[in-house]
Amino acid sequence: MSSAEAAPVVPSEPGSRFLDEIREQPAAIGRLLETSSTFAEVAEEMRRRGATTIRMVGHGSSDNAASYGVYAFGLLPGWTALRDSISLTVYYGAELDMSGCAALALSQSGRTPDVVEYARLARRRGAYVVAVTNDPSSALATEADAVLELRAGDERAVAATKTYSNQLAALGLLAAHAAGKGDAFGGELRSVAAAMPELTDSLQARIGNVAVPFAYAGRMFVVGRGAEFATAREIALKLLETCRIAAEPLTATDLAHGPVAALDSLFPVWAIASDDPNLPAVVEAVERAHEAGATIVASGSAAESVPHAQYVLATPKTSSPLLAPFLSILPGQLFAWALARARGLDPDAPRGLSKVTLAR
Amino acid sequence: MSSAEAAPVVPSEPGSRFLDEIREQPAAIGRLLETSSTFAEVAEEMRRRGATTIRMVGHGSSDNAASYGVYAFGLLPGWTALRDSISLTVYYGAELDMSGCAALALSQSGRTPDVVEYARLARRRGAYVVAVTNDPSSALATEADAVLELRAGDERAVAATKTYSNQLAALGLLAAHAAGKGDAFGGELRSVAAAMPELTDSLQARIGNVAVPFAYAGRMFVVGRGAEFATAREIALKLLETCRIAAEPLTATDLAHGPVAALDSLFPVWAIASDDPNLPAVVEAVERAHEAGATIVASGSAAESVPHAQYVLATPKTSSPLLAPFLSILPGQLFAWALARARGLDPDAPRGLSKVTLAR
Repeated sequence: MSSAEAAPVVPSEPGSRFLDEIREQPAAIGRLLETSSTFAEVAEEMRRRGATTIRMVGHGSSDNAASYGVYAFGLLPGWTALRDSISLTVYYGAELDMSGCAALALSQSGRTPDVVEYARLARRRGAYVVAVTNDPSSALATEADAVLELRAGDERAVAATKTYSNQLAALGLLAAHAAGKGDAFGGELRSVAAAMPELTDSLQARIGNVAVPFAYAGRMFVVGRGAEFATAREIALKLLETCRIAAEPLTATDLAHGPVAALDSLFPVWAIASDDPNLPAVVEAVERAHEAGATIVASGSAAESVPHAQYVLATPKTSSPLLAPFLSILPGQLFAWALARARGLDPDAPRGLSKVTLAR
Repeated sequence: MSSAEAAPVVPSEPGSRFLDEIREQPAAIGRLLETSSTFAEVAEEMRRRGATTIRMVGHGSSDNAASYGVYAFGLLPGWTALRDSISLTVYYGAELDMSGCAALALSQSGRTPDVVEYARLARRRGAYVVAVTNDPSSALATEADAVLELRAGDERAVAATKTYSNQLAALGLLAAHAAGKGDAFGGELRSVAAAMPELTDSLQARIGNVAVPFAYAGRMFVVGRGAEFATAREIALKLLETCRIAAEPLTATDLAHGPVAALDSLFPVWAIASDDPNLPAVVEAVERAHEAGATIVASGSAAESVPHAQYVLATPKTSSPLLAPFLSILPGQLFAWALARARGLDPDAPRGLSKVTLAR
């Protein structure tokens, strides 16, 4: 919590919990990295069992983190990872053969009903089931063969921040250990986490000026591709939850396949541009959005390369595309914090949500 | 085209092509079913090669159809099907081992650049590559081991309709043949197609009264689950493309994990409710949306079971959850047609789109 001291907020101020938890992310990542040896053991067990097709399940931020997992497992051990359908197994009762699979069940609380049920059934179908949760004594943990504890700590704001970044860290670290590169990834992630407080301070100081012009925005597209598609999804979800903006995440290429027709000067586009091989696709999407009259917000390590951006929220470059999302989420989280306040909303407690979602 | 005669429209009227093509869907499905033996051969080759993990790629409507493919392959042969990341292979150059996989590359034109490139690389990585396209002489077909022709016929409206339903038909028929049930599925689909003209007539006659109250709507959630998640995605895309509504598809359960906080009386929710095991989850999501003040539109074979629905667009029951999406797409397509006209837009030619998308 010490990093929060740099920019004290009145405890009862709306959004103070959300902001505290945004600022706590590097410490939370540090706590997770202390348990790197557990990740090495689970990765070793995956290899031993030949469980090299990775089925990930979760809702909301957990499902967004799973989008990152697709790239972590694809780029590090070269394994196929998918965001699995929960309903196929849980509601339709499909009897898929899951031998040769690891099922990673993501739930902050470990109590999401259909994720717990999926874990139970996946184990019966032959998968090696790993619970990824903040609560190692939860129902989800009980159903699993192994537990990876997120160690994000008590998350009191309803909208997830440090849980999301620790889910990324967990998936990245597990994939890295599966590739025999766990220590290297852990070291690089530690460096990235060390860069977070300065970036957070800098963004926090100027994000209000970027957010206020969007005080009356009703809708937005958030565009990313590759490992940053997870970031696009998570930023869109934060805007929905805390700012009540109809924010839809799209891959850069999907924007051109239909949604671009909806754009106009009152329909802004947020582009996450990282210094990776997807950058040309993101730039091309922004060109089309600009032609349609959209206001452009650019963030990420290549934000400066995005043409026509009225607002630029650059993040430091990283040594690999899998590390960039830990930094590129910060402009979105802080924008959501500032914009919610500008709209008179409390980002700590969005209407109609509770911290543990027990919906089917 | 004969079914269009039942409700003649002035040829130059905005939306006449879009409507003609909606009405042509049963005939298009009939044309595809004539080639059932080709699907049987491809399915046999998949079995022979052990290519039982199905990687699907496509953008826009093609990617929506792939959502249906997850359920078709999961419920019929019990195979794992996934919407694969194009960027992992094409932009990052990840060297995934795709032996034991079939790659189904979906592109109406067969010219979508990164889908063509994916097909080329997937073949090199060991996948059995199948092009699913309207153009069997396209670049995509050239890169593939086998071609499944959609036979949707010339699609002149920019927003896909009959191509989408024939993509569903192609994926369903292929999955059914893989399960040794191709003839039964083909027969059932023929019956469903035979029910489409009467449903279309009935919906067309009354959809204007449902659409007009949404003339000023700026945003909407479209909720479905299981096999109907594809329908939710496709209806949302039609609303974006033709009506310029920020329509976001969500699974019923994901609505409760954040987005419900954005709802109010000016943020309607369209729920696709089919008579299948996911219905309780959809009903629960609608209850939450209603509590938040949202106007509810219900469609699908269980639309009458949806509580609090101000607008009900029921479709006939089908013999299996995999057949329902062929009917439940119709209310959405016709609503988009009627609403675009109510908003003074031409659904045949949305601004900023062209029929063949060559964007990266």
